[in-house]
Formats: sequence, C-alpha cells, structure tokens
Amino acid sequence: MLSRRFVHIKTVPRLYCNHVDTFNYSKNLPTHELLVQLNLINQPRAGLVNWSPIGLTIMNKISDIIRRRMDEISFEEVKLSLLSHHSSWRKTGRWDNSSELFKLKGEEYILSPTAEEDIVNYVSNNSSSYKNLPLLYYQINPKFRNEKRPRGGLLRGKEFMMKDAYSFDASEKDAMTTYQSVIGAYTKIFGDLKLPYTKAEADSGDIGGSLSHEWHYIDDTGEDIIYTCDGCGSVSNVEKTLSYPEQEVDESQSIEVAVRYFTTVDRSTLVCAYYPSSRTLEPKFVKNEIPDLDLDFDDQETILKEFSNEDTLISKSIVRIMDARLHSRANFPDFPISFINRSLITTFTDIPIISAIEGELCGKCEEGHLHSNKAIEVGHTFYLGDKYSKPLDCSMDFPVNEKGQVERRNLIMGCYGIGVSRIIASIGEINRDDKGLNWPQSIAPWTMTIIEGAKSESGESYESFYNTLNDNSVDYRLDNRAKIGLGKKINQSNLLGIPLAVILGKQYPIIEIEVRGKRYVEEDQLSWKKLHDSTDYSFEWRVDFDESGKDVKHFVHRDGFIAVVQALLKDM
Amino acid sequence: MLSRRFVHIKTVPRLYCNHVDTFNYSKNLPTHELLVQLNLINQPRAGLVNWSPIGLTIMNKISDIIRRRMDEISFEEVKLSLLSHHSSWRKTGRWDNSSELFKLKGEEYILSPTAEEDIVNYVSNNSSSYKNLPLLYYQINPKFRNEKRPRGGLLRGKEFMMKDAYSFDASEKDAMTTYQSVIGAYTKIFGDLKLPYTKAEADSGDIGGSLSHEWHYIDDTGEDIIYTCDGCGSVSNVEKTLSYPEQEVDESQSIEVAVRYFTTVDRSTLVCAYYPSSRTLEPKFVKNEIPDLDLDFDDQETILKEFSNEDTLISKSIVRIMDARLHSRANFPDFPISFINRSLITTFTDIPIISAIEGELCGKCEEGHLHSNKAIEVGHTFYLGDKYSKPLDCSMDFPVNEKGQVERRNLIMGCYGIGVSRIIASIGEINRDDKGLNWPQSIAPWTMTIIEGAKSESGESYESFYNTLNDNSVDYRLDNRAKIGLGKKINQSNLLGIPLAVILGKQYPIIEIEVRGKRYVEEDQLSWKKLHDSTDYSFEWRVDFDESGKDVKHFVHRDGFIAVVQALLKDM
Repeated sequence: MLSRRFVHIKTVPRLYCNHVDTFNYSKNLPTHELLVQLNLINQPRAGLVNWSPIGLTIMNKISDIIRRRMDEISFEEVKLSLLSHHSSWRKTGRWDNSSELFKLKGEEYILSPTAEEDIVNYVSNNSSSYKNLPLLYYQINPKFRNEKRPRGGLLRGKEFMMKDAYSFDASEKDAMTTYQSVIGAYTKIFGDLKLPYTKAEADSGDIGGSLSHEWHYIDDTGEDIIYTCDGCGSVSNVEKTLSYPEQEVDESQSIEVAVRYFTTVDRSTLVCAYYPSSRTLEPKFVKNEIPDLDLDFDDQETILKEFSNEDTLISKSIVRIMDARLHSRANFPDFPISFINRSLITTFTDIPIISAIEGELCGKCEEGHLHSNKAIEVGHTFYLGDKYSKPLDCSMDFPVNEKGQVERRNLIMGCYGIGVSRIIASIGEINRDDKGLNWPQSIAPWTMTIIEGAKSESGESYESFYNTLNDNSVDYRLDNRAKIGLGKKINQSNLLGIPLAVILGKQYPIIEIEVRGKRYVEEDQLSWKKLHDSTDYSFEWRVDFDESGKDVKHFVHRDGFIAVVQALLKDM
Repeated sequence: MLSRRFVHIKTVPRLYCNHVDTFNYSKNLPTHELLVQLNLINQPRAGLVNWSPIGLTIMNKISDIIRRRMDEISFEEVKLSLLSHHSSWRKTGRWDNSSELFKLKGEEYILSPTAEEDIVNYVSNNSSSYKNLPLLYYQINPKFRNEKRPRGGLLRGKEFMMKDAYSFDASEKDAMTTYQSVIGAYTKIFGDLKLPYTKAEADSGDIGGSLSHEWHYIDDTGEDIIYTCDGCGSVSNVEKTLSYPEQEVDESQSIEVAVRYFTTVDRSTLVCAYYPSSRTLEPKFVKNEIPDLDLDFDDQETILKEFSNEDTLISKSIVRIMDARLHSRANFPDFPISFINRSLITTFTDIPIISAIEGELCGKCEEGHLHSNKAIEVGHTFYLGDKYSKPLDCSMDFPVNEKGQVERRNLIMGCYGIGVSRIIASIGEINRDDKGLNWPQSIAPWTMTIIEGAKSESGESYESFYNTLNDNSVDYRLDNRAKIGLGKKINQSNLLGIPLAVILGKQYPIIEIEVRGKRYVEEDQLSWKKLHDSTDYSFEWRVDFDESGKDVKHFVHRDGFIAVVQALLKDM
C-alpha cells in the first residue's frame, strides 16, 4: 500500500552516451535517423522497432498521460491477446479485404492490427447485464500491420504502439454522451502534450452515419491534407472537405469536363458525375447526394453496358450530377447512351463533388475560404453504431416495460485510437531546431540533466541538494561521466531535448539552470516571471537574458531551486 | 516534473461485479477457472489470454516490483520488437530445433519466444566500446510459444508475460559478478512477493559450463520435481539431483538390471549404462561421467550395429557404467557383442545415473537424505558464456597493452527470466483457501475495499476520511454498489483476495477493518501487535480475536487509521 514512487539516482544510459559522443548533429538529418543516432530507438528490420531505454521512457510517459485521462472518464484498462482468430474477421468481412493483415503460418491467427472484433468477443463472452452499461475499455499495446513499404522510423511501421479504446452503450443517445466524454479526454491529452493540434471533423454529426474526428499535428512532413475555413473555423480532412469555387463561375471561360459513372446498389439508377478534368473527383461526395450509390462497383465499361439495353432501360433512371465549378456551356463529353429518353434524366447542378484546393469557398458556411495544411494524424474517434456488434452478435436484453418483458438489442459502439509511437515521431519532428530535439517536459525522458562542474568553492557537498531532488521526486538524470567537458554535456542534454540543464559548480549553493525547453505560453504569462516579479520568495535568484530578451540562464540558491524549476517547467 | 502519482477514486470494475454477484465459490473449482470466473483473465482461445482490469493490475504490480529491483542493479529497460527475423535463429541453430516457434506466414519472421538472438543483434548494431561494459538490459513483454497442448490458464500458454534480462560482460569473471548481482535482485524480488520459494542449483558452478539456477514455488500442482537435502540443504531439480541408495546395497537381494547404450560424438566408445530396471535412467548423469557422450544419437539398434563389426572393434573401446544401486550379483542382461575382448572394457561402479527418489542419500554431501517436492518454475538464471555471442559475432576490441594494441573478443553473456503471468497463476493457486483467493498486499489488485454501511450516528461525512486516503496514496477501491448487502460485499472482497475490508458505518469515526490477508511473519513478530503493545499511539483501537487467537477485526478511530493499516499491511 501507500505506494511511494521509488527514487533511484539514474545516470545517463550507456549506449546513448557512446553514440552521442561521436555524433555531429545536422539539421538535415531526417528525424527518424536522429532518433536512431541518439539511441532512442533502433530498427532491427525495416518497419520494426526496438525501444531503447530513452525512447521507452518517452513512450511510457505518453502512455501514462493517456491512462490518466482515460481513467478519469471511467474507461478501464485491459490487455487483449495479440493473436486474433480468423473466424471473427471473416464474420465482419475484414479477413479478405485487408492485404495488410499479418497472418501466422497456417492462417488460423493474425497479429492484431486493431481490436474491434476481439473486444466485441470479450464483452460477449462475459455475460453481463444492461445495468453494467456503458462498458468502456482501452488498451495500450503493440499493433501490427503488414505494411509493404514501411516509412522511415515510427510514422508508418509494421509494428507500432497504439492506444485503442472501445465503448459499448445501450443506445445511440448514450453512445453520443460517451463519444463526447472521449472528445473531452482527448482534448486534455493533447493539451497535456502541449503542441498545437487540430481536431478535424469528419462528418456533419449525423449519428446514424459515421460521426468521426481526426486529431492531427500540422507539419509539412505529414501525409494527410486538412483544410481549415477562415470563416466558420471548421477543420476537415481533404476527403471530407466540401468546397465551392472561389469566384462565381465565368460562363465565358471554357472548361474541359470529365465524367465518371456509378450505379446504385439495386442497379436501378445510372449516376453520371461531371467535373472539371483538371481536378480530382471524390466519389464519397457523390455518395453524399445519392446515399444508395455502390462505390465498390466502379468498372466503367460494365456499368455502361448494364444501361445500354434498350428493352430494360425503360424501368431505370439516370441522374446527372454537375460539380459546382461547371457551367452549362462547358465542354461536356458525349452522352454514351444514344437512344436515351430525356424524360428519364434528372440533373443536379452546383454540387461539390471534387477535392478542394487552397482558397476555395468552404462547403459548410459557403462564406469563408479554405486553407490547406499537411498534417500527421495522431488520433481518431469513431462512432461505430452496430457495425461490429451486429455481425458478431453482441447484444443484451433490455426491459421494454415493467412487466419484465425484454427485447434483445445490439450494443452501440464507438472506437477511439491514439498513435503513441506516432506522437513521438511527430513531436520529435515538429519541435526540432538547430540544437536538436526538444521535448515537452511532460514526456521528456527526464526533466533535467544534472551536471557536476568544478568543485564548489564553499566546500559544501551536494548531498543535501540530491536529497531535496529525491524528496520532491524530481525526475532527473545525473551525467557524471569522467573526461567529458561541461560544455559538451550541456550540448548533449540540449541535443536530446531535455528541458533543463542544471550545473553544480564553484558558486554552489548557487545553482545554474540552463533553459532548453520550448515555451507553450505567451511571454507575459510565463510562470517564472510572475514568481520573479512577486516578492513571494526570499532566496537569491538572478537571470541572464539573450539579445532577444529570452531568459537563457537562471542562477538560483539551493533553497529556491525546487520553486524555480517548478515554475520553469510549468510552461514547457 | 515532480511526478505526483495521480489519485482517482476507483470503484470496482463493472464486469467483475456482474460475475461475482452470480458466482458460488467452490474450493474444487480449478484456480485457472476461478481466475476466469472472477474476471481477472479471460481466454479467447486455448492458450491465449485477455487481461481484464483486475488481472492487469496484478500483472503491473509484479512488473513494477521487478523493475525496481532490476533498476537497482543498473539493468536498463528496453522493449525489443516482438517480431524476430529467421536469419539469426538459423545462425544459432534454433530455427529447426524448436517445433514451438510461432512462425508467420512466409516464414520470414517468428513471434519472439525469448530474445537472446535479438538482444545480441541490438548490442552488435549499437557500435559501442568496451568502456561501456557491462551492458545490462531487461524487458517485460509478451512472449509466444506455439504450445500444442496448452494447459489451463496462465501456466503454460501460447502467449505469456515474461521478464527477460540479458547481460554482456568483458570476461567470465565479470560475468560472474553480474550473475551474482542478479541472484541478489531475484532474492529481493521473491522476497517482495512474500511467498516461500526455493532456489534450485542446477550445476556445481563451473563457470566454463552451464551455471544456472531455477526459482520455484513448491506446490502439488507443479510440473517440476525438486529435491532438497536435509543434510547440506542443497536444492536441485530432479534432472540435476544426483543420489546414492539410502542403505548399503544388499548383495543377497536380487535386482533386475536394465541397460541403455550410448556412444561418444566421435563414435570411438560404446557406453553401456546399467541401472535397476524399476528406476528411471537420467542420460545427463551418464554424460557427467563421459562428457563426450552424444545424447542426441540414441537409437539402440544402430549403436549396437556400429560396434558389432569384429574388424573395426579393435580400434574402439567400451565403457560400462554401473549405477550406485547395483551390486555384482545383480541380474545383468547378456552382453550384446559376443566376440568382445575383455581387455577393451572399462567398468565404473557406484555411479549415480538414475533419477533420485524420496529418502535416498544426497549425491553432493553423501550424508543427508533427499526429500522431493512438486514445484512450479517461476524464474531462471543462466550463465551463457559465448553461446550466442559467438555464432552471432557479438564482439568488441579490448586493449591488450598500453601501446594501443587490441584483441577482438566475444562478449560473455547471461540471461535471466521471470514468468510474470506464471507467478500470478502460482500465487493464485498456492494461497487459495475456503474463502477464495488471497494476494500478498504487494501485488493485490488493491490493498483494501472500502464499504459504506449504515450512515454514521455522529452525522459526520466521510469526506475527511477519503482525503486522508488520497493524501497518503492509499491504494483502495470503493464498493459503492446499491442493493448489495454489507456481508456480501465483504465476502466478495475476501473472495477476490483483497487484504483488508474496511467498513464505514454507524460508529464512524470508529472504522472497522476486517483482516483477510495472509501473514508472512511469525505471530510474535506482527507489526500491528508491536504498535498495539507500545504506548506509541493516542487513538481509540480495539481488536476482536477468533477462537484461535487470530485478530479478525480491528476497530480504529479515523485518526489512527493510516498507522494501523500500515502496520497490518506490512506483514501481509
């Protein structure tokens, strides 16, 4: 009981020391190679990762932030088997659809890439009552994906660390309440991680549909493109961004028109989607208009053949959808069916069915302009409905009246992911500067490097200082290597992105604190400044600034050390 | 920084509640089924495990105990990829030898069952210097074994949680120092886990050989048999226990003799091992005498055929080894080679070559008697030498003189395992009684269940009590379910093996503490008694005893609650 965190003076990991001593930092080195060079990770094969002590510490800190916030909203942590039996994947239709499943020899099992099937079985196998709802679970586990072309480092690998969470509710309404509580937790998690992020809406919020949000870090190395509207402020993935032309369509300007044919699931309707040939059609947008559209059936020739039989055409209909950027005098291709009765044709005009480009009008507010950014997706939240609970028959008896009559209903699900190893890769990349990495203090491998320089002139030993650190559970590492100069140790601490370098030297009990960590608040909000400006302290404290006015060094008496580093770290 | 453990009032997990409410405990239920019924784990398929919130908590607590002790001896935690490439396994010869490797489709990768190959590559790939030695690593990771007949629960599964540690030293001498430090850490780990354990020596300590220790819990459900000598106290696995007959061999008693033939690797010598036909030969013991013996070549007919050629026999030799339990007048089988020249035969008598049985003399001290126990192996420590570093070429340059000349040498390794999920299964089994499970407080899912009974007559709210719990980081769960009686809640807490049940009721601020946890110290050493007998406290405290004199209930004033539960838990 009374779990007291174990404090152990930790020195700097051995292999890291060796690497960093012989390493010349260059801003041009790709971040994933930097992570390897600094021995945070190591790649035994393309797409696989060994986590070294420092990398593992960062991963554990991110995991603990996630745990804390998921626990707060009453999600319970589990650890499901990493092996998933093929039978459930066949039932949900995901067995054959995904070429990225890592199958074991014999194809009885796969390595879990995500756990919808398994968590549904977990809940089904634990006979429970509707009174226990909602059932809320998460796990932080390795996940596997047989990625054919793994990208460098942690961004797209065969093996990655992910937090995946799943919720089971009695109704859509309850599921929405759960969904909103997860949105709240994610907002706190990404807040704890300090870096600016965007939450991109993925749909209008129709709960019968596919409500989802994506959580991104904006960065030029990202593979996703997201659009932000400078009018209504809505943010969405390019695949979800509806747009209108920036200016009214000029009918005098000629436009080359392309067409793509679709049909409905019941094959009763031919849908012809017309759009500027210079742009990219987004079939999902066509489906927004014709919900019954069969996106999987897209062989153009076969579709046209089905509608080219004069005898049966009479019972069918034709819909033409014109992208909003077209006008009636544009250069349309010939209609492929010659004997068509014009009365069978319905035409929708002014519909956004292509991917947006920079500067176009927002499809939502129709007033603001869209601005694109490259982004790295680090989280997602999905409302699933009964997509998995139905094929896997995850249901419960619910009372329908007070006579004890019940009805059996499928549970309503949501799923919620966060890419833990991706966050490390992203923050590593985004926060890099000409000194090296730069971690927010909440996830830094340690918050400060302690470096002992020259002996103190006062002759005082540092023992009481270390005791203070331990009593306050300060998360530090001691760089006590012989034969490495003070300057080099500070540079290495900065290179690794440790927020503070603390030097014990001649002037002790005055302690020098070098500031490396990035600030995430405005200059006039800095906590250390507020403390410094107040008269609320009684120890010696002097600050050195650089030309730009940034505090680069603090000289603090031992008695004030804890107060000052707490204030400094608060904003990092 | 200043990581303060997050305190969150936790209620009892939902699915657990549901299960336990409808569950009737029986001592006859196998422990692995009990763990499933109480929702600690869940088995999606034979040999696979889903860890539920309660089971996961126990696993995390054991893992943290291990981490603390491994950190203390400067091992660093890593997390290697769970996928291991076939190439290294071919180099060490373990690819074809093991039918239990879980191979992925395409056979490029296996799921790691243990990480000798991968940790060697990890060290080799991180170019390092001998100055960084020793390199000491551990990980706590799922491991995989394609077990054809998985046993129930956590004892022998396809997927299990294991701590595996590896050391790399410059020399055998240094490796021995590391080995001893691990022995020290293991002693502390198993000490923290409270249950009596045995450390079975596996060899005499010849460092060129295969020094190893096995760490066991004694229990009748165990698959291993270990022998303890009541003379010299040595403990060893049956496969390593040399023994002599309990009484001097009585030549008047007839003994049926069996024989087994072996040959040396160079095929120059036929070895005939004679032993009582009623007993079990241990071929390794024969190899102790004839180190060159080829244990893999054991086809009796083929061996005899090789030595039945009269022309070549002249260049060969024959060794007869007589087990210590035989005498010259025993009933020996006919010698299978008729034309043998007696001068070619060497005979060793009085050699222990069969598995010991209860009561025989210890082969080490030759004085004490051996006593057998069934046991569950939960840890092992192995000195590996260059067994893996040689085939995988893990070497470093070492200086040989001060002129800067170096020589390249393989690193000297050790490996050290602890079966985390096995420990849970073992302690679950060993500590069970007629009330249910019973966890040591160090690994209990929580140290106490708080149950609110009737409202306090004083009208005081419990708020200050909960604040005290949180301020002291007490690890508790609140069972606040409506419509479940007080007695049932206490029984369920006991069934799950929670050390203390704490009842807040009418008499509050007097608090009732029911003692469930097992004591691991002598009655007269109990910490609570020492405190109670002293005058070193000033709060109200009354104790109820049962007929046997065991303290079953403590009634303590709120002011003394923390002191009393600390004292109680200390011995559990």
